[in-house]
Amino acid sequence: MVITRKVEFSASHICRIPELTDEENRNLFGMEANPHGHGHNYVVEVSVAGEPDAVTGMVMDLKELKEILNRAVVGPYDHRFLNYEVPPFDRVTPTAENIARDIWDRLEPRVRDPRRRLHSVRVWESPDLYVDYAGEAACSG
Amino acid sequence: MVITRKVEFSASHICRIPELTDEENRNLFGMEANPHGHGHNYVVEVSVAGEPDAVTGMVMDLKELKEILNRAVVGPYDHRFLNYEVPPFDRVTPTAENIARDIWDRLEPRVRDPRRRLHSVRVWESPDLYVDYAGEAACSG
Amino acid sequence: MVITRKVEFSASHICRIPELTDEENRNLFGMEANPHGHGHNYVVEVSVAGEPDAVTGMVMDLKELKEILNRAVVGPYDHRFLNYEVPPFDRVTPTAENIARDIWDRLEPRVRDPRRRLHSVRVWESPDLYVDYAGEAACSG
Amino acid sequence: MVITRKVEFSASHICRIPELTDEENRNLFGMEANPHGHGHNYVVEVSVAGEPDAVTGMVMDLKELKEILNRAVVGPYDHRFLNYEVPPFDRVTPTAENIARDIWDRLEPRVRDPRRRLHSVRVWESPDLYVDYAGEAACSG
Amino acid sequence: MVITRKVEFSASHICRIPELTDEENRNLFGMEANPHGHGHNYVVEVSVAGEPDAVTGMVMDLKELKEILNRAVVGPYDHRFLNYEVPPFDRVTPTAENIARDIWDRLEPRVRDPRRRLHSVRVWESPDLYVDYAGEAACSG
Amino acid sequence: MVITRKVEFSASHICRIPELTDEENRNLFGMEANPHGHGHNYVVEVSVAGEPDAVTGMVMDLKELKEILNRAVVGPYDHRFLNYEVPPFDRVTPTAENIARDIWDRLEPRVRDPRRRLHSVRVWESPDLYVDYAGEAACSG
Repeated sequence: MVITRKVEFSASHICRIPELTDEENRNLFGMEANPHGHGHNYVVEVSVAGEPDAVTGMVMDLKELKEILNRAVVGPYDHRFLNYEVPPFDRVTPTAENIARDIWDRLEPRVRDPRRRLHSVRVWESPDLYVDYAGEAACSG
Repeated sequence: MVITRKVEFSASHICRIPELTDEENRNLFGMEANPHGHGHNYVVEVSVAGEPDAVTGMVMDLKELKEILNRAVVGPYDHRFLNYEVPPFDRVTPTAENIARDIWDRLEPRVRDPRRRLHSVRVWESPDLYVDYAGEAACSG
Repeated sequence: MVITRKVEFSASHICRIPELTDEENRNLFGMEANPHGHGHNYVVEVSVAGEPDAVTGMVMDLKELKEILNRAVVGPYDHRFLNYEVPPFDRVTPTAENIARDIWDRLEPRVRDPRRRLHSVRVWESPDLYVDYAGEAACSG
Repeated sequence: MVITRKVEFSASHICRIPELTDEENRNLFGMEANPHGHGHNYVVEVSVAGEPDAVTGMVMDLKELKEILNRAVVGPYDHRFLNYEVPPFDRVTPTAENIARDIWDRLEPRVRDPRRRLHSVRVWESPDLYVDYAGEAACSG
Repeated sequence: MVITRKVEFSASHICRIPELTDEENRNLFGMEANPHGHGHNYVVEVSVAGEPDAVTGMVMDLKELKEILNRAVVGPYDHRFLNYEVPPFDRVTPTAENIARDIWDRLEPRVRDPRRRLHSVRVWESPDLYVDYAGEAACSG
Repeated sequence: MVITRKVEFSASHICRIPELTDEENRNLFGMEANPHGHGHNYVVEVSVAGEPDAVTGMVMDLKELKEILNRAVVGPYDHRFLNYEVPPFDRVTPTAENIARDIWDRLEPRVRDPRRRLHSVRVWESPDLYVDYAGEAACSG
C-alpha cells in the first residue's frame, strides 16, 4: 500500500554552469540559463509505502506527514531563489532531477520507521514536465 | 500493457474508533473524526494488465469494464454514508487505504481471466491525497 | 479589476424536504436525497472587485482575504455535515445554490469597504457542476 | 461571441516597495517580499470579442492571435525576472493585478480592428489565485 | 443565480471552405484544414440563469437538465464526424464558434420557461481554446 | 531517475474490423465503431530513465527530447485521421493500446543510448482512459 500527498511551492532558479560561456549555457539549458533566473510553481508528490495499521487503517499519520513536509520541503523551498538561498543549489544545478534527489534526501530519514518507508518523490516543474526518484538503490525501471 | 479507467463517486465517511475518546480520535484523525461525518468526491483509477487481443487491439472490452465498475463500485458506494451503508465500513475505518483494499477485493475476481488481471487501484480522497493498492501479494515497492 | 481566490472544503449534505415522501424526494433530488447523506470536496472561488492600490499594486491584501475566508467559510464548513452542523442548513436545503448564497452572505459585509466589494462567489459541488452568485441586486444575465 | 486562448510563461518576481523596511514589506506582501525573488508558472487567458466571419466561421484568425501572443506576451515575459528584465516592472510592483494590466496594454492595440476587440485578460499566478482585467473603461462589476 | 453543468463529447471535424484551394484553406485554417479531418474531446459548459425555487433550493431540476443535454447535444454530437453527420455542419464550417452557436440554438427553446433561461454556452475545443456564446441579443462585452 | 514530458495531438480514428458486420463492430467497440470516425485530444506522457549527468544535472537534454517527440510523434499524428494517414493504422485498429505500442516503437531507438533508455509511454484517449506501455520485455505488473 502506498499513500501519496501533494504539496506545492513557488521558487526561482537558474540552470547554468559557471565554467561555461553564455552561449554554451544557452545551448545546454535554453531559456532556463537566463542569468537573472525565472520561476515555477513546483508540485511535489511524496509517496510512503507500508501496511495500514490494523486499528487506524492508516499507513502513516497524515498530520505527522504534513508536518514533515512543511518542515523539510515547503519551509526551506517556498518563495526562495534556489541558487542563492537553498543549499546544495549554491553548487548543484537546480534541475528538476536534482530537486527530486534533494527532497528525497531530506525526507527519507524523517519518514522511515519499522512500519513504513519513503517510496518515491515526484517533482512537477510545469504541467508538462515531471521527474520521479525512488532513491539510489531503486532499480530505475 | 496496462489500461486504466477513472470513475467517480461522492460519499460521506467518519474516521473514528469507537473505543477511543473524542480527544483521542481527534488526535489520531484530526477533523476526519467529526462524529457527524463529512464527505468527498472520490476518484478511483482501476488498472487492468494484459496483452491486447490481436484482432480487436484491446486488453479488455471497455463496455464490460464499465459495467463491472458500475456494478461493483459506483453502485454500492455512490451517494452513500460509508460507515452506515457500505460493509465492511460498519466495522472497518473507511480510510482511503481501506477503501482501496475493499475496491480491490470487489474487482479482482470479476476482472481476472486467462488473458488479464487487475493490476492496481488508485483512490483519490481529495486532489492532494491518494492511495495505491496492488493486492496482498504485490511487493509494495 | 477582479481578483479571485480558491478555497476548498469537504462536507456532507442531504437534499430532501421533510414534508415529502421518500419517493417524492427521490424524484426531486435523485441520489442526493439519500437520508444518510453523502459528501463532496467543494471548491469555492471568491472574487473581489476594486482598483489596485497605487503603491502596493493590490486590489486587496491577500493575507487579509485568506483570514476572512478561513474564518467565514472554511472554519464553519470544513469537515461538517451541513444539515446538522451549519445553520441555516438545518432549515434550508443545502443545494449548491443555497450554499453559494450563504457564502455570499457571510463574506459580503466582511469584504466591503470604500475601495472594494465582493464581486461573485462560485461554488463547485463536483468537477461537472458549479453555481455562480453575485448578490440579490445583480442582474443575473 | 468571445474566443479565449491560453498561454503560459514562467517568470520570477519580487513584490516589495523600496521605500519600506523589510518588516513593512513582509507585513504587506508576506513571503512574496523575499528580496531574492521567487517564481511562478503563470497562465494567461486572452479573450477576444467579435462576430464570427460569415465565411470562415472564426472571430479571429487563430494563427494571427498566436503570433500576437508570442510577440507581445510570451516573448517578453517567458523565463524572465520581471523586476529586472521586463519594463514597467522596474518601477511598478509585479503583482498579478499589474501584470494583467500590462498584458492588456500590450495586446489591446494589436487585437483591435473594426470586427473585433480585446474582451478581457485573466492572469493565473497559481492554481488558487487569478486576476481578471477588462480595461479602464470597463464597468468592473 | 447561474448554474452550470459540464458535458463532453468526442467528434471529428474539418475546417475548410470548398470554394478555396488547398493552399488557401491551409493559410486560413492551418492544420485544421486537413481534408481527412481530425478530432477533439470537446467539453461544453451549459449555464442556466434563474432564481432557486423556494422549496427545493434549485434553479433547475438537474436530472431534467441532464436529459436535455443528452438528447440535444451528446446524442447528436458524440462520436460523430460533424461535417458528414451533424447538420448544419454539412454546409457551415464546424469551428468552435459555430458549434457554440448551434448548441445554443438546440438548447435555448428546451431550457426556457417562466422561471429560467439559457444564460451562456462555453465550448472547449482543447485545453487551450474555448468560445463563449450568449445568444444573438446578448451584448457581447 | 525517470523524467517525463507531456505532448498533445488531436486526431480522428475508427475502431472497427473490416471482416465484421456493423452490428458485430458495434457490439465490440460501441460508438467507437462509427464508420465516419470521431476524434480525441490525445495526451502522451513519455518517460526516459537514466542517471542525471554529473555536470548538467539532467537525465536527457530536454530540447533534444522535444525535437524527437515533434519529429516522431506530433509531426506524424497531429491533426490526422489515423486509419487513413498514419501507418500502421491502415491495417491495425487504432485503439489506445495500439497507439501506445506504435509510439513506443517510434521513440525507443531514438531515445536509447548508453546513459538512458525509454522507460514507458502513457497515452490518454480522454480524461477518463489511459494506457501504459513499457515495451515487450517489460514485466507488465
